[in-house]
Amino acid sequence: MSIEIYPIRGIPEVVPGDDLAALIIEGLEASQISLFERDVLVITHKVVSKAEGRIESAPDDRAYRNLAEREARSILRRRGDLLIAQTEHGFICANAGVDRSNVADGLAVLLPVDPDRSAHRIRLRIERMTGVSIAVVVTDTFGRPWRRGLVDVAIGVSGLPAILDLRGESDAHGRTMNVTEIAIVDEIAAAADLVMGKADGIPAAVLRGLDLTGDGRATDLVRPPEEDMFR
Amino acid sequence: MSIEIYPIRGIPEVVPGDDLAALIIEGLEASQISLFERDVLVITHKVVSKAEGRIESAPDDRAYRNLAEREARSILRRRGDLLIAQTEHGFICANAGVDRSNVADGLAVLLPVDPDRSAHRIRLRIERMTGVSIAVVVTDTFGRPWRRGLVDVAIGVSGLPAILDLRGESDAHGRTMNVTEIAIVDEIAAAADLVMGKADGIPAAVLRGLDLTGDGRATDLVRPPEEDMFR
Repeated sequence: MSIEIYPIRGIPEVVPGDDLAALIIEGLEASQISLFERDVLVITHKVVSKAEGRIESAPDDRAYRNLAEREARSILRRRGDLLIAQTEHGFICANAGVDRSNVADGLAVLLPVDPDRSAHRIRLRIERMTGVSIAVVVTDTFGRPWRRGLVDVAIGVSGLPAILDLRGESDAHGRTMNVTEIAIVDEIAAAADLVMGKADGIPAAVLRGLDLTGDGRATDLVRPPEEDMFR
Repeated sequence: MSIEIYPIRGIPEVVPGDDLAALIIEGLEASQISLFERDVLVITHKVVSKAEGRIESAPDDRAYRNLAEREARSILRRRGDLLIAQTEHGFICANAGVDRSNVADGLAVLLPVDPDRSAHRIRLRIERMTGVSIAVVVTDTFGRPWRRGLVDVAIGVSGLPAILDLRGESDAHGRTMNVTEIAIVDEIAAAADLVMGKADGIPAAVLRGLDLTGDGRATDLVRPPEEDMFR
């Protein structure tokens, strides 16, 4: 089994009310990519949020900070202008996911209200338009404690497990692996970012070759507070 | 630009003193993969550690815990048998990277003493044997605060930047992006894990299509304590 990842080019600037599924299909055609059964369509949430109208005015730093505080369910840390906050979905990230990059001056993009549902809706619409069964992963770019640099992670998923549970399976030595839950959709998100590139404005990619179906949600990735040692 | 990722099959069980570069080249031949210029060879540290003799006896839980404590530079949290510790390299992970999976009963595998140097040495040896310029990434499987599930990350690198610094570049709106340092080698590690699979005993993969060279180290990813809000 090998994996291929293709960037989807030609998706125009997305505005509220756009039919994102249709724009992605046009992008696939412009990029000369045919969808195959079980392909995984990876989409940065930025275009999902824009299509869903999750854009607000943020004319200055103060307005931006207020937006981030409003989107936060709780705030873990504050340093200067940076807020590490938990969103209503349960994700913990900078500024509760409110972001001013890749959007026009004076505006900020919020996370989708329910990114798992967004992924599901886009998946159904693309399946209906193309007749091909796919999975969809919606991503955002998160920092991490302890490790420098940002990585893309999954904040929405449809048609895949969020976590691959290998507990109980045997390793190559016949030992039962006891703590091996793989955050497979986060690995998919990170992989797809390799062809998207922050500066290039490529908001989606197709990942092919992962022979996997399932019914997970990105909120499965939220670690319950009682299991979390770093709040 | 598209990315392809190929699993390297046919690498036998590695024992101390093995010439890992030679075993990988045999695996490439068995898998019918030809190396191309700028291919990235991704290797789980488990086989690097074994070849380097970083295996110790851990006949019971207590011996295992003692090993983990010995490998830790400092301990951040303790819960039951689980230790979240900083290694001598600076990485923060479970049990200071000491692991009992994918190794014979009664043994535990430690992290390489200097995984960046291991990556560099393997790279030079493979380049000498094949005449092809490549990059090498050595990986481990880490948990994360806040998010359930494990992902593969880079603990050693040669021939690539660890972090892609897009600060100062413009986004698709012509805005200067101010906080966009991408942990590109962690994204590469996560991507490669998609074809390796914890249970399958595939310890290496080739990632092709990433047109990147550089001179980073995985220790570049260690966030300095004064920048870290979650110790």
